[in-house]
Amino acid sequence: MQKHIHGGNIYKASEKYGINADDILDFSANINPLGLPEALKKTLVSSINSLVNYPDPECKQLVKNISQYLSVLEDNVIVGNGASEIIFLLFEVLRPGKVFMPAPTFAEYAKAAVKFGADISYFELKEQNDFKLDIDRFIKQIEDEVDCVFLCNPNNPTSTLVDTGDLLKLLKHCRTRNILMVIDEAFIELTVGGNSNSMTGFLKEYDNLFVIRAFTKVFAVPGLRLGYGLGSTDIVKKMWDHKLPWSVNSLACSIGNILSDDLCYLRKTGDWIAKEKEYFYGRLREFSCLKVFEPQTNFALIKILLDGLTSAKLGDMMAAKGILIRDASNFTFLDDKYFRVAIKDRKSNEKFLVILDEVLKSCKG
Amino acid sequence: MQKHIHGGNIYKASEKYGINADDILDFSANINPLGLPEALKKTLVSSINSLVNYPDPECKQLVKNISQYLSVLEDNVIVGNGASEIIFLLFEVLRPGKVFMPAPTFAEYAKAAVKFGADISYFELKEQNDFKLDIDRFIKQIEDEVDCVFLCNPNNPTSTLVDTGDLLKLLKHCRTRNILMVIDEAFIELTVGGNSNSMTGFLKEYDNLFVIRAFTKVFAVPGLRLGYGLGSTDIVKKMWDHKLPWSVNSLACSIGNILSDDLCYLRKTGDWIAKEKEYFYGRLREFSCLKVFEPQTNFALIKILLDGLTSAKLGDMMAAKGILIRDASNFTFLDDKYFRVAIKDRKSNEKFLVILDEVLKSCKG
Repeated sequence: MQKHIHGGNIYKASEKYGINADDILDFSANINPLGLPEALKKTLVSSINSLVNYPDPECKQLVKNISQYLSVLEDNVIVGNGASEIIFLLFEVLRPGKVFMPAPTFAEYAKAAVKFGADISYFELKEQNDFKLDIDRFIKQIEDEVDCVFLCNPNNPTSTLVDTGDLLKLLKHCRTRNILMVIDEAFIELTVGGNSNSMTGFLKEYDNLFVIRAFTKVFAVPGLRLGYGLGSTDIVKKMWDHKLPWSVNSLACSIGNILSDDLCYLRKTGDWIAKEKEYFYGRLREFSCLKVFEPQTNFALIKILLDGLTSAKLGDMMAAKGILIRDASNFTFLDDKYFRVAIKDRKSNEKFLVILDEVLKSCKG
Repeated sequence: MQKHIHGGNIYKASEKYGINADDILDFSANINPLGLPEALKKTLVSSINSLVNYPDPECKQLVKNISQYLSVLEDNVIVGNGASEIIFLLFEVLRPGKVFMPAPTFAEYAKAAVKFGADISYFELKEQNDFKLDIDRFIKQIEDEVDCVFLCNPNNPTSTLVDTGDLLKLLKHCRTRNILMVIDEAFIELTVGGNSNSMTGFLKEYDNLFVIRAFTKVFAVPGLRLGYGLGSTDIVKKMWDHKLPWSVNSLACSIGNILSDDLCYLRKTGDWIAKEKEYFYGRLREFSCLKVFEPQTNFALIKILLDGLTSAKLGDMMAAKGILIRDASNFTFLDDKYFRVAIKDRKSNEKFLVILDEVLKSCKG
């Protein structure tokens, strides 16, 4: 079977450590800890009878909801089975010869690039710069053969955010060179400022922009499989043509109204991230044997400064106590000292801190 | 947007004919009219909270349930986003040079074959033989270059069933020629005899057999997106490796127990199909301007004998009265005289017959 190296596999952990899946605190997956919005839960329950019908293959209502949410035309919206399907579909229809992207970043871009025969070159995000992207250096390093630049913003796993001013500079540069700029904004609603950090406002003016989004993180529904893409009519049409029919299930099709019906949830989400991010970051920084990179969204990248302790070993010790972290050693340019943790609700974060403290103390001594 | 030519698009019909989607009787999709089993509904509702976790990428519990249901090893089971994902994935990993299949048949095989560069040759099922497959003639026509034969059993849209004796003859022939035999059994539980008509019992002995199945039709959950494939360890492993991660959503992952928990539902399904198939077929045959091919599963292929009336026109007239049929003119070797109808519960079937009668009378007269 396929080796899955992403976070969030509580089933494997449950089996490996003999802990009931429900008793595991999963800090390896970066999901909104406010959980499913109540309105969404109601919609889902009331939609169960609709499973006897095939999903609408064009997901019209959902596309309409998304277009209204972000003020884009319906012809510029494609929906898919999570952001994953959007990423693979994009490479499938574009078949770029060469892709340039900052790294470390989400591994699915490279996986999709390799699958569809693209060359990848990386722009290394440096630890000494706290993994922040220097947009001018990035632009300078875009070679002539590059067809497509791929950015994750905020970036996974570094939790860094590039501001829209810098991104616009890059977008303009790309347009003059006929390069498509793809931005994965899966976590954008989980930043302070939310959609104001998004590039979606530039879709009307820039044909060379493609934005990837998902319901997964912000509405805490990774199990539902719902992502979407926003881009030029031409690319979006090609993607619809190549898409597996009905890959978006009926329940996922039915939840588009959450984008307008529960603004309260989005506000609460904003309040939580603004407050909890600072608190958790502050507390994590108290560990002298860790280097914590300042998070801009609902997860933090952390480096272990303790000799002899690897992220895999730390992960094992934490998991034995019912807490999963994401070993980040398999990200390009990172090594076995890095791990990633989600930022959750205060109670869970407190529990995490206590157990992390216990485990680190036992390592030191 | 993609043109979807399958049955079951009640959303488009609702828009086109100005009828509420809930008021449409959909005879174009071949779903078990007993509806969602109650046990399944309960499982789904109680699983909604699990949407906050990523689905198990290996769907272990589901794979286990399927392996027990059909007495096959877990390593021989792959699950996917409907039978569609299984079909496309199979072509993706096999990349057969040449595929041979009877036609008319389900169009997705050809679509997947074309996508992955396979040549297709068809064995024409003849109307004068009531579209029944002559296995000896089929075997004789398998050319040396064929890598893979593809059968749908019972076949969509002809509703014909090949018995396991004939299929075994074909399977043995294929093995001597190193040909993979793929059988899509999406409707097998909706035949009289159910799983006794299945080839799954030969999986242990024949490495060159691959069986496609789905929860879609038998448990009336096309909206959930859940299909599976059964084949050699080697092919199944390759398919897992190429699969889009998490394409099976958490709710679909959670319903495997229905295969063992609700045998009563399967028995009721068997009773219904045995009885209703005969009744509906008998009543349909009373229409002198139609030729009805004897159904072996929960749908029937019908030919219009009336000059000037096409299946598209009939479909339009029926839809205006709230009943959808499946125009079958786009199936290979069929023309604009053919349509397909599902066999539903008695009450719906009666309503269908009344409206069909009205519409046909208005055409004649």
